[in-house]
Amino acid sequence: MNRDFSLLVDFYELTMSNGYFKDNRHEEIAVFDVFFRSVPDEGGYAIFAGLESVINYIKNLKFDEDDIAFLRSKNVFSEGFLDYLRHFKFSSDVYAIEEGTPVFPNEPLFIIKGPIIECQLIETMVLLSINHQSLIATKASRIVREAKGRPVFEFGARRAHSYDAANLGARSAYIGGVVGTSNTLAEKMFGIPALGTMAHSYVQSFDSEFEAFKSYALNYPENTLLLVDTYDTLNQGIPNAIRVHNEVLKPIGKSLKGVRIDSGDLAYLSKKVRIMLDNAGLSETKITVSNALDEFLIRDLIVHQDAQIDSFGVGERLITARSEAVFGGVFKLSALEVNKKLVPKIKISDNVAKTTIPGFKQLYRFYDENNMAIADVITLHEEVIDESKPYTLFDPMHTWKEKIVENYKAVPLLVKIFDKGQLVYQLPTLQEIRKRKEVLFETLWKEVIRLKNPHEYYVDLSKSLWDIRQELMIKHKN
Amino acid sequence: MNRDFSLLVDFYELTMSNGYFKDNRHEEIAVFDVFFRSVPDEGGYAIFAGLESVINYIKNLKFDEDDIAFLRSKNVFSEGFLDYLRHFKFSSDVYAIEEGTPVFPNEPLFIIKGPIIECQLIETMVLLSINHQSLIATKASRIVREAKGRPVFEFGARRAHSYDAANLGARSAYIGGVVGTSNTLAEKMFGIPALGTMAHSYVQSFDSEFEAFKSYALNYPENTLLLVDTYDTLNQGIPNAIRVHNEVLKPIGKSLKGVRIDSGDLAYLSKKVRIMLDNAGLSETKITVSNALDEFLIRDLIVHQDAQIDSFGVGERLITARSEAVFGGVFKLSALEVNKKLVPKIKISDNVAKTTIPGFKQLYRFYDENNMAIADVITLHEEVIDESKPYTLFDPMHTWKEKIVENYKAVPLLVKIFDKGQLVYQLPTLQEIRKRKEVLFETLWKEVIRLKNPHEYYVDLSKSLWDIRQELMIKHKN
Repeated sequence: MNRDFSLLVDFYELTMSNGYFKDNRHEEIAVFDVFFRSVPDEGGYAIFAGLESVINYIKNLKFDEDDIAFLRSKNVFSEGFLDYLRHFKFSSDVYAIEEGTPVFPNEPLFIIKGPIIECQLIETMVLLSINHQSLIATKASRIVREAKGRPVFEFGARRAHSYDAANLGARSAYIGGVVGTSNTLAEKMFGIPALGTMAHSYVQSFDSEFEAFKSYALNYPENTLLLVDTYDTLNQGIPNAIRVHNEVLKPIGKSLKGVRIDSGDLAYLSKKVRIMLDNAGLSETKITVSNALDEFLIRDLIVHQDAQIDSFGVGERLITARSEAVFGGVFKLSALEVNKKLVPKIKISDNVAKTTIPGFKQLYRFYDENNMAIADVITLHEEVIDESKPYTLFDPMHTWKEKIVENYKAVPLLVKIFDKGQLVYQLPTLQEIRKRKEVLFETLWKEVIRLKNPHEYYVDLSKSLWDIRQELMIKHKN
Repeated sequence: MNRDFSLLVDFYELTMSNGYFKDNRHEEIAVFDVFFRSVPDEGGYAIFAGLESVINYIKNLKFDEDDIAFLRSKNVFSEGFLDYLRHFKFSSDVYAIEEGTPVFPNEPLFIIKGPIIECQLIETMVLLSINHQSLIATKASRIVREAKGRPVFEFGARRAHSYDAANLGARSAYIGGVVGTSNTLAEKMFGIPALGTMAHSYVQSFDSEFEAFKSYALNYPENTLLLVDTYDTLNQGIPNAIRVHNEVLKPIGKSLKGVRIDSGDLAYLSKKVRIMLDNAGLSETKITVSNALDEFLIRDLIVHQDAQIDSFGVGERLITARSEAVFGGVFKLSALEVNKKLVPKIKISDNVAKTTIPGFKQLYRFYDENNMAIADVITLHEEVIDESKPYTLFDPMHTWKEKIVENYKAVPLLVKIFDKGQLVYQLPTLQEIRKRKEVLFETLWKEVIRLKNPHEYYVDLSKSLWDIRQELMIKHKN
């Protein structure tokens, strides 16, 4: 189902585009970058996601007569501009990081090089897609990491910020490492395993909890996972679950797969439940918990409270990234062609950290001989790094901090997605993206991915790029 | 464009529904309520939204062959159940609060009465729609209130949690009181005025800021609003804006409509800018600001810093409700028909506040003779309140706290939406919904709507409903 997002564009993109058109500057070649300035939750890394959505949007971008008529009714656009939109055909080059890649502040994640009018028209949708999906992929990776190998399920659809957030949020969470979702449509759309068993209402709808459990076990003998906290977990839920195992499942050669606790003190209850199940000979029965969990609570349960939990269902705090619900990707002009030559552009800010990195760029990740990521270097687009030679990394703010590396690999991270408007990128499967995240995550030092006060991963500039930026800053100051 | 959300359902709704079906209990009549337990940001009220989306979803709910084939592939559903889905036809009664109504914790916002299988199947979509849209409408109303009459614009599309959140978020924000949006599609879809002028990239794309402003003024002489902070607001942006007024606009009989500041210290800059504009004879030129604003920052700017601001553009913190990005609406069983008679159902919790309110209910709002809302009373569905007689309001927790009211109006808030599956509600226009919010908001005491430590609005139970609840709690305890 291709939806029409042509007008999901901030209105100022249209007034600017109309301005470029009227000034006959709309075909001027520009370069815009997407980057972000800080990681949500003061984290050390983000997981890049949203590219597939952006590609689908760009591939299908056109303005139909309905859109044109609507825009005409605003009485601010020239007929020439509306005619341009009517015949719009995307013709730019696009480069991007691949989904599932860990990324860091100030790195170019997505670059468009093409007529300035095209750059401007896609801004909102590109940011919207990347910001939302990177936010959730990053959040999921944090939660999954703190679960230390225990499966995490995404259960948040009912609290998502509407329908796309439920579906694309599940996809992003899967990239980030969850193993399944409650959202059935996310399996149909993306192949993410959907699962779930029962809510409290199911238990309440029977005359007794035992009757409810019995009915469920008879209907799903292969996968009997019972919600045990409707009335009283320790005094009713678990005894009824054990009785159902003994009276219903065992006689037909099956056994109780698991129990879910959705309220109360999860540390205390899980430990008590584990003992009760073990004493009943149900040491294989799994304990899963849910209820407003996130990476902080999960870490506490596991590390500090010795909770006996086999898997986690995480809802609202994952699907909304509640602890910090904004991923601040921005879209900035970095170069403009003048007389057929790209001229780097900079946006100066009183806040030095907000001054942009000018020019048409590439991004390299440096790995040491143990395949651990040691630094990323932003370079000019055409720069080639000769791995046979030592390379000097230096801090772009404190340039005396430098380090010469040898025996490294330098891998370019920005790949070409569209060439003059033609899609040239072979989209990976969702499984491949998820695997990419898993593999690349292993190349990050633990100091970079830890929850609190992570080590700041090095994102440096090449000497050539640093020189250009320095020159532009001095020029603007004068 | 009707989208297919039939499978945007938590998988456990399907396993439960299949269970009901196999047990031949699926036609049993049940009542489920949507309610929430606390207001985001410790606020005193919420603005209900999302009903139109729910209605459109229910009206179009069907399971096509593609859905059936997908579900069959999961190997857990009976053919009988799949056949039931194939012929699914919504047949329940639905009652709901109208969009734009201020609502309070524990109140029934949406009630479905019908075959238990239907109730279960719609749970996820009902919650998802109401939770997201009420969240944003509530947040917007807080921000608009703190702007104290100054127009607020919704500028958040690029940071929304995907596409629906941008569009339906703009609609919800409009209900909450914003006057326009940056999202062009939201105007096309819902008629919300879309607006915007220029980004920094427009200014950067010219040889000088003056050239950029001049081009813009020539292209939009009727509505010249210039972004003045690309290089240096006070030393370049404002002088260039004034020069464009004098050299470009004034000669053709136009004048500078406004300037926008998007960075820096907005209090300091706005005061300086106001003086500069006034000194240039531009006292009619408006100052609009943006940059990570929310109700707290806006209040500070206006109340504590005497900022000279005429309107606000609010982005990421509105569209994501960043300060608390979760609206916790839940969907709970409240009654079940046994032998053609509705039997109230309760869910007990160790946490008394989480114990549900049983039964098939109605909600009344009591107004005093000055048309101020004094309390809401949850009653049994069929209860009638005789306004000619005194009515005793009492606190459901501390029952000795009571108050007898006279000369009141008692307005039922739950209206019938679907009658045996037929839509019987005349959907209001978005303007009517927005107006409803505005009018009803005026009936709330300032103590209830204030930002910090609001007075807790009274939500009481009728004597009949209180008795039923008490009885069920005692029964469950024994």
